[in-house]
Amino acid sequence: MTDAATNMRVKLPITCLILQIILIILFGTIVQYDSDTDAKEWHEHIHNGSKDADNEFYYRYPSFQDVHVMIFIGFGFLMTFLQRYGFSSVGFNFLIAAFALQWATLMQGFFHGMHGGKIHIGVESMINADFCTGSVLISFGAVLGKTSPVQLLIMALFEVTLFAINEFILLTALGAKDAGGSMTIHTFGAYFGLMVTRVLYRPNLEKSKHRNCSVYHSDLFAMIGTIYLWMFWPSFNSAITAHGDDQHRTAMNTYYSLAACTMSSYAFSSLTAHDGKLDMVHIQNAALAGGVAAGTAGEMMLTPFGSMIVGFLAGIISVLGYKYLTPILEEKLKIQDTCGVHNLHGMPGVLGAIVGAVTAALATPDVYGKGMEDVFPDIASGDFTASVQGVRQAISLAVTLGIALLGGLIVGFILKLPIFGAPSDAICYEDSIYWEMPGEESHDNQLTAVRTEEVEKLNG
Amino acid sequence: MTDAATNMRVKLPITCLILQIILIILFGTIVQYDSDTDAKEWHEHIHNGSKDADNEFYYRYPSFQDVHVMIFIGFGFLMTFLQRYGFSSVGFNFLIAAFALQWATLMQGFFHGMHGGKIHIGVESMINADFCTGSVLISFGAVLGKTSPVQLLIMALFEVTLFAINEFILLTALGAKDAGGSMTIHTFGAYFGLMVTRVLYRPNLEKSKHRNCSVYHSDLFAMIGTIYLWMFWPSFNSAITAHGDDQHRTAMNTYYSLAACTMSSYAFSSLTAHDGKLDMVHIQNAALAGGVAAGTAGEMMLTPFGSMIVGFLAGIISVLGYKYLTPILEEKLKIQDTCGVHNLHGMPGVLGAIVGAVTAALATPDVYGKGMEDVFPDIASGDFTASVQGVRQAISLAVTLGIALLGGLIVGFILKLPIFGAPSDAICYEDSIYWEMPGEESHDNQLTAVRTEEVEKLNG
Amino acid sequence: MTDAATNMRVKLPITCLILQIILIILFGTIVQYDSDTDAKEWHEHIHNGSKDADNEFYYRYPSFQDVHVMIFIGFGFLMTFLQRYGFSSVGFNFLIAAFALQWATLMQGFFHGMHGGKIHIGVESMINADFCTGSVLISFGAVLGKTSPVQLLIMALFEVTLFAINEFILLTALGAKDAGGSMTIHTFGAYFGLMVTRVLYRPNLEKSKHRNCSVYHSDLFAMIGTIYLWMFWPSFNSAITAHGDDQHRTAMNTYYSLAACTMSSYAFSSLTAHDGKLDMVHIQNAALAGGVAAGTAGEMMLTPFGSMIVGFLAGIISVLGYKYLTPILEEKLKIQDTCGVHNLHGMPGVLGAIVGAVTAALATPDVYGKGMEDVFPDIASGDFTASVQGVRQAISLAVTLGIALLGGLIVGFILKLPIFGAPSDAICYEDSIYWEMPGEESHDNQLTAVRTEEVEKLNG
Repeated sequence: MTDAATNMRVKLPITCLILQIILIILFGTIVQYDSDTDAKEWHEHIHNGSKDADNEFYYRYPSFQDVHVMIFIGFGFLMTFLQRYGFSSVGFNFLIAAFALQWATLMQGFFHGMHGGKIHIGVESMINADFCTGSVLISFGAVLGKTSPVQLLIMALFEVTLFAINEFILLTALGAKDAGGSMTIHTFGAYFGLMVTRVLYRPNLEKSKHRNCSVYHSDLFAMIGTIYLWMFWPSFNSAITAHGDDQHRTAMNTYYSLAACTMSSYAFSSLTAHDGKLDMVHIQNAALAGGVAAGTAGEMMLTPFGSMIVGFLAGIISVLGYKYLTPILEEKLKIQDTCGVHNLHGMPGVLGAIVGAVTAALATPDVYGKGMEDVFPDIASGDFTASVQGVRQAISLAVTLGIALLGGLIVGFILKLPIFGAPSDAICYEDSIYWEMPGEESHDNQLTAVRTEEVEKLNG
Repeated sequence: MTDAATNMRVKLPITCLILQIILIILFGTIVQYDSDTDAKEWHEHIHNGSKDADNEFYYRYPSFQDVHVMIFIGFGFLMTFLQRYGFSSVGFNFLIAAFALQWATLMQGFFHGMHGGKIHIGVESMINADFCTGSVLISFGAVLGKTSPVQLLIMALFEVTLFAINEFILLTALGAKDAGGSMTIHTFGAYFGLMVTRVLYRPNLEKSKHRNCSVYHSDLFAMIGTIYLWMFWPSFNSAITAHGDDQHRTAMNTYYSLAACTMSSYAFSSLTAHDGKLDMVHIQNAALAGGVAAGTAGEMMLTPFGSMIVGFLAGIISVLGYKYLTPILEEKLKIQDTCGVHNLHGMPGVLGAIVGAVTAALATPDVYGKGMEDVFPDIASGDFTASVQGVRQAISLAVTLGIALLGGLIVGFILKLPIFGAPSDAICYEDSIYWEMPGEESHDNQLTAVRTEEVEKLNG
Repeated sequence: MTDAATNMRVKLPITCLILQIILIILFGTIVQYDSDTDAKEWHEHIHNGSKDADNEFYYRYPSFQDVHVMIFIGFGFLMTFLQRYGFSSVGFNFLIAAFALQWATLMQGFFHGMHGGKIHIGVESMINADFCTGSVLISFGAVLGKTSPVQLLIMALFEVTLFAINEFILLTALGAKDAGGSMTIHTFGAYFGLMVTRVLYRPNLEKSKHRNCSVYHSDLFAMIGTIYLWMFWPSFNSAITAHGDDQHRTAMNTYYSLAACTMSSYAFSSLTAHDGKLDMVHIQNAALAGGVAAGTAGEMMLTPFGSMIVGFLAGIISVLGYKYLTPILEEKLKIQDTCGVHNLHGMPGVLGAIVGAVTAALATPDVYGKGMEDVFPDIASGDFTASVQGVRQAISLAVTLGIALLGGLIVGFILKLPIFGAPSDAICYEDSIYWEMPGEESHDNQLTAVRTEEVEKLNG
């Protein structure tokens, strides 16, 4: 069932092995335990009065695990909605995430400050690596069903690199705040992926249209992904905020944003259907937009009230995007966005960036007190006014869009190289190109008939 | 496929939007960060010697996330056992939980003490809101398949309110202890739901009988819900107990209660079948009764030994309930209890309340030491004897049953109003009334045939 | 559909009830709260200056819950890959785990030191009980589909006992280190199970061959198990290591080992297929070998670099094992290993043990500093040199293999007793022997046709 182009026997092993060997060599050369993971250094801290409970592990590991679940179960199963692409959705998600998190450790370590020529790693770098991986998986959603695993690994290679550059510009050079990644993760991942899928435009994709839809149980599998993303988004947005009130507040703001978003998603899903029926696509995706949109401002004093307004709007925007904008993007702009990442990550990410800029510009010492040092250190130190912080946030959004679109353009053209084994237009959204397939369910029914007979005979 | 009555196009959006807008307005008016989530206030604590590690977030957030998984994955997937109601089970669970947790924040905040006219919120209120939501989802189990989403939202609106009143009477007025909610959550939710489904009695429900059963894969989806509820019940019961030994002990007691319950559930499931075969209904539900029954006494010095006895009995009661009592309730009392919540939450909840009363009455300073202040502050302070505490626990059970049954009666009649769009007797347990349906699996098989041919042709 | 032999109506209830009643009696006699779960004792600690945050609960409970998910969801769903054995995979996993964790509490408590004739329990003993249970579930994987639930309970009874003896010899008598259980859990469970399945060899098992394979959705259910095991393995390996840097470092080493393992598993899965297609069996299993192989050395100063090499090799060994060794074991050695536990737990466990021995032998004060006391207390105290520690690790592997093989041999012969109700060769891998079966999916499609008609009629 595989033609020469999509036969992965040489391409995929070579790509995986070369990438992994390079990773191992680089880790051996420049990566070290940080002072919370190194046996000797941590015990020097202990000697100097630290206690084991102060180890960063206890502040962040539960959050890390929640983020980890979002990356591997959340994104992986969210994409299983396609009727015959479940193996690839979960399986390629697994593969590119396993690669991207290693590569991200290096790229983020490189840009975020080497220590004497070495990258120091611990739970915080693990969370950041997972975050960067999330961005790649968002882009994967845009090209889902139309790319080979080799193309995806190559995309991850470049996207992680560009992610780290963009993140460096935003957080270090511009001093922007973006703890939950409305800009760095969602906006970046979405527009990068949209540009890649634009470059990879397939004029004859309607040949695979009958496979680009769900069946009953595939939609239920996808709900596993949705619900896990929804539940753990408070952990995602709060995972790398400052200790104490910051983590606590961010988680709570996100919780209320998501709840409000769910309500507006259901309302608009029903409202925009001619017979009032809910659409699984909206429930699976739009209900999550509240998490995306609270990604920048979640750590600020947005209040539950503000968070709920943001989530409420995000849900509406997202459903309307699925209903009205996606078909236009496909027809007019030739952007074939399989999972509708523009509606779940793109527009809500931009909304989140804007909300973040406005909330930052409104920050006052009266509201933040000494907490200003954690949330906006540059305002607290007097280096910048709140308005300037707001402007820096807005510039960060523009930079992110620019790097994402330009990066996606270039990477899209790289991925067009025929060597990477993309499927032809008529066999997209199809697991059997890349996977050994088990017997069909129909086969199962026949077996069942045989089995029942047989068992009855055996039991007399 | 939808008649006028069940067309949700106007009803559902309006209900969702009005409820959400009211919530947003109320949150804007009377809800504030508590001192652990507010930037300014927390940093004043820090100034006064607190450390970030003292923030309530680190004591409770992991427990909160486990509870959150139980509410959204646990309850949601537990109810996917029906062959054609998976979208509604997970989807309506998601919707009413997203509403209920917001409304519960307000109602519980209102009853549990305003601070200068404001409700203060943080991780503990989030856990309590999820708990209250759990109660609504238990009632949802009783009416599953027979109610529209609008009915469910209206039910949640009233039930949350009554839950908060009952909880206030028990915990504040009566000074009862019920950390895991054997009474406040399980008994209340079950008997409320049973009364609602009694009022909504459908004499011709056998028209939908062929849909009120499972298929192979729907039972596997339901096991996801079961196992998550089972695994995280120790976190549920310990989530709001006092710091230190209390959380630790509660989790451990629940762990052993559940293990023993699983053993007795399997034993009685096999024992009560004429050919000794296990019944998925029992495994999916009765094995959880040990968590319910340890809800009140779990935080007390019940000991693992006592916990195992409680769990062991709960499993037996629950299986026997499914096997012998549910058919009687349906025939004689006209209570159509779709998920058998009486067996999973009702009777085990009452058992848990009784065990709690007895355990409280037996509390001695010799066993509890200084820990008495955490578990039974009124006994420690000398205001009450242990016997009186036991009596107060018993009265609490009676109050809960009274409010649940009366409340369910009234709310049941409200839900009978035809405006809410209940399905007719012949189309219960059917997703396609409320959801856009994907292609059928059978269709998939045809597609597969086409696909295989086509791919082979393409690959020559 | 059940003949006399496999009718469980008497056997299963009696076994469950007797075992549980014995457990309850033993718990009532010899088990007590430890000083972190006992109300009185903990408050005496508080009185003496401890703080609630020092309670072991806060150091270990999040790790415990992750381990718990691996045991019940991870192992349970990993084995649902068989087309008609999903109920038994999840359901028997659930049953034997619920039994084993209680029995393990007693056996491990007995061997690891009684306190005044009593076993003291808390979160650490809960983790250890889950670990021991994991070992039984590994053996379950070897005999999956070919044993009755009664056989499995009897196997668990003996295996837990032998596990505790072996663990005692390794950790206490030999002073070996094995925090993540490469030896105690994986090597032991795998070789024990392999020997049991060897003794239970079925010459006519090809009669059930058509059922010993997966269908599309059963493979997706299995991926839920895989991904959860993969994600939470860092928590597994670090759950009982020392506080601070040890937990932190172990989690991180495992994280990188798994990522590298995933890459090499995909590479070799594709490489060894004649058309380059990925095999779900490899992805579901081999990608996890990196966690197994980091089980002993993960807490040591293995470095991420070393961890990645270990994981990389583990993935390769595991895929090659599935591809080339399993068929040989079955043909030549008559070992019918349903889940291929030799490839996932056996060989990677041995690899992990060897890596642990080498890493221990290379330990220097220069690298570990004061942390040596946590990782290698005997080296720190000067009782042994690093080389001797390495030798003790190697002897531990030999002891484990010996006890596992000998124990499996004896237990295998016990399980051959016809009284336990094993299925005949022609009805292996079949749920319907032990479970009430719901309607078939095919039936569902017929229902659907009926339903659609009916609904349309109703709605005019």
